[in-house]
Amino acid sequence: MKKLAVVALGGNALLRGDQQGTIDEQEANIYETCTYLLQLIKKDYNLVIGHGNGPQVGNVLLQHEAGSKMFNIPKMPIDICVAETQGSIGYMIEQQLRNVLEKENLQRDIISIITQAMVEKNDPAFDNPTKPVGPYYSKEEADAIAEKTSHKFAEDPRGRGWRRVVPSPAPKSINNRHSIEKLVRDGQIVIAVGGGGIPYFYVEPNKLQGIDAVIDKDFASSMLATQINADEFFILTDVEKVYLNFRKPDEKELDTITVSEAKKYLEEGHFSKGSMEPKIQACIQFVEKGGKQAVITQAYKLGDPGAGTKIVRD
Amino acid sequence: MKKLAVVALGGNALLRGDQQGTIDEQEANIYETCTYLLQLIKKDYNLVIGHGNGPQVGNVLLQHEAGSKMFNIPKMPIDICVAETQGSIGYMIEQQLRNVLEKENLQRDIISIITQAMVEKNDPAFDNPTKPVGPYYSKEEADAIAEKTSHKFAEDPRGRGWRRVVPSPAPKSINNRHSIEKLVRDGQIVIAVGGGGIPYFYVEPNKLQGIDAVIDKDFASSMLATQINADEFFILTDVEKVYLNFRKPDEKELDTITVSEAKKYLEEGHFSKGSMEPKIQACIQFVEKGGKQAVITQAYKLGDPGAGTKIVRD
Repeated sequence: MKKLAVVALGGNALLRGDQQGTIDEQEANIYETCTYLLQLIKKDYNLVIGHGNGPQVGNVLLQHEAGSKMFNIPKMPIDICVAETQGSIGYMIEQQLRNVLEKENLQRDIISIITQAMVEKNDPAFDNPTKPVGPYYSKEEADAIAEKTSHKFAEDPRGRGWRRVVPSPAPKSINNRHSIEKLVRDGQIVIAVGGGGIPYFYVEPNKLQGIDAVIDKDFASSMLATQINADEFFILTDVEKVYLNFRKPDEKELDTITVSEAKKYLEEGHFSKGSMEPKIQACIQFVEKGGKQAVITQAYKLGDPGAGTKIVRD
Repeated sequence: MKKLAVVALGGNALLRGDQQGTIDEQEANIYETCTYLLQLIKKDYNLVIGHGNGPQVGNVLLQHEAGSKMFNIPKMPIDICVAETQGSIGYMIEQQLRNVLEKENLQRDIISIITQAMVEKNDPAFDNPTKPVGPYYSKEEADAIAEKTSHKFAEDPRGRGWRRVVPSPAPKSINNRHSIEKLVRDGQIVIAVGGGGIPYFYVEPNKLQGIDAVIDKDFASSMLATQINADEFFILTDVEKVYLNFRKPDEKELDTITVSEAKKYLEEGHFSKGSMEPKIQACIQFVEKGGKQAVITQAYKLGDPGAGTKIVRD
């Protein structure tokens, strides 16, 4: 049986921080990323692609805000905005990956699936919303919105104003996982859990409802990898490897570490919160739940056996 | 083998013309529509759902316009906007259909697939853009944009201003049709060709590119129905049946007509352009290419054997 890999693409693979976000920029970045994904396909992996949506969902939220002010179009909740970005980013990846495969005369279906991820209402994240989303407001504007809605706001640490903060709960299950696994084992390429998936919960025993929250894309991709019995899990980011004492004089790069070592380094505080820390945690979860290995690296290293930092079983 | 049906949902099934488009309105409409789709599922059909996106893509285009003016966010081309609505509408249908099935204790995966549809660059529609999209402009604004871009504009017949017009080419092929057929024959429910699909063409022999156009959702659903070898094709609209001499004193409702009869009525001009005419044409295409029957009716009639107007082989 072919090896099955889930690859989670970070924001940089789609849109860099120094870019405006035009269609040409995004298509060029994604095309390049797809040439790296090709390395795994050529090595005969079956492939699922997860991806982030940070800059894109930020733009969608601002567009809804502006559309409401200028044209009186009802603003949609965050779950719908995430779904919109799954559509646009899924399409862009699908199209560029088709272009890469066409050049190589490789025939695969490439299937972008809108993905819902279940969360639990009693997840502690709901008591402590931390993820900033949408436009910046003045303190007065934020207070006025907070009074009319249940929205929570927090001041931007860099002083750019106040932003809505939403919870970032843990994904408990990924919808359509059986069909995703079937498609992928059939040799097709699936794009799923975009932006971490669209969060929903059971508001009543038989009633699903979307919820204003954002799921971490690495945790969601890790959960999907576990639930479809993937062999390997890749997180693509903007560093080649994971480091101890990152950017300090005694910086040390990590090649292969066990889950126990990874946990020890986590406890010692080597990995930055909201950045490398959740990636390491997502890798640990995948390997602890049965995955063979998780790899954190840069996209252009894909297919290179020595690439990145590997997290393996003890 | 179970019967396979493709059902194309019209705009009214999602959002009525007299509604603003809030999330609550859309969810309620879609939930109701899904209770009607349940009738086909209970009659043991395998099901693919296509859908329109008229009001939603109109809103997205306005939101992009507003986001560009207020926050300087790059506007995306129409193919990306269609992809966004496939995400949001696909998600809404998926979620509400899950709620309907959960109540009945029915277990199916419900899989919304981002769908690209191939068009041909030499389609005559590209010489004659007719489909109005996006915001209304004054003549001066429209002229200014037309000068900077290749966009074409036309005056609104009801005098509301000038709007961009884009071509509405014929879909030649639907991507991922083999995987869609496999999923559906496996008993899963697939949502596809939202808004008629995202149009693309081959700009070079091995290079796909999106194009500013909008495909008719009934033609796209008909093409998908043909390509996945569906038995039946349903177009849901806001009338129970098709009529000759519609809304005239000698109005006559049609129960079952053959393809030849349908063609004759088309020639006689019984069906309104841009409304019933393309629906009849889409049905004819499906039956001529091998489908058993096509049905035009209202959602609440689904599952009623005498429902709607049937178009059958000669």
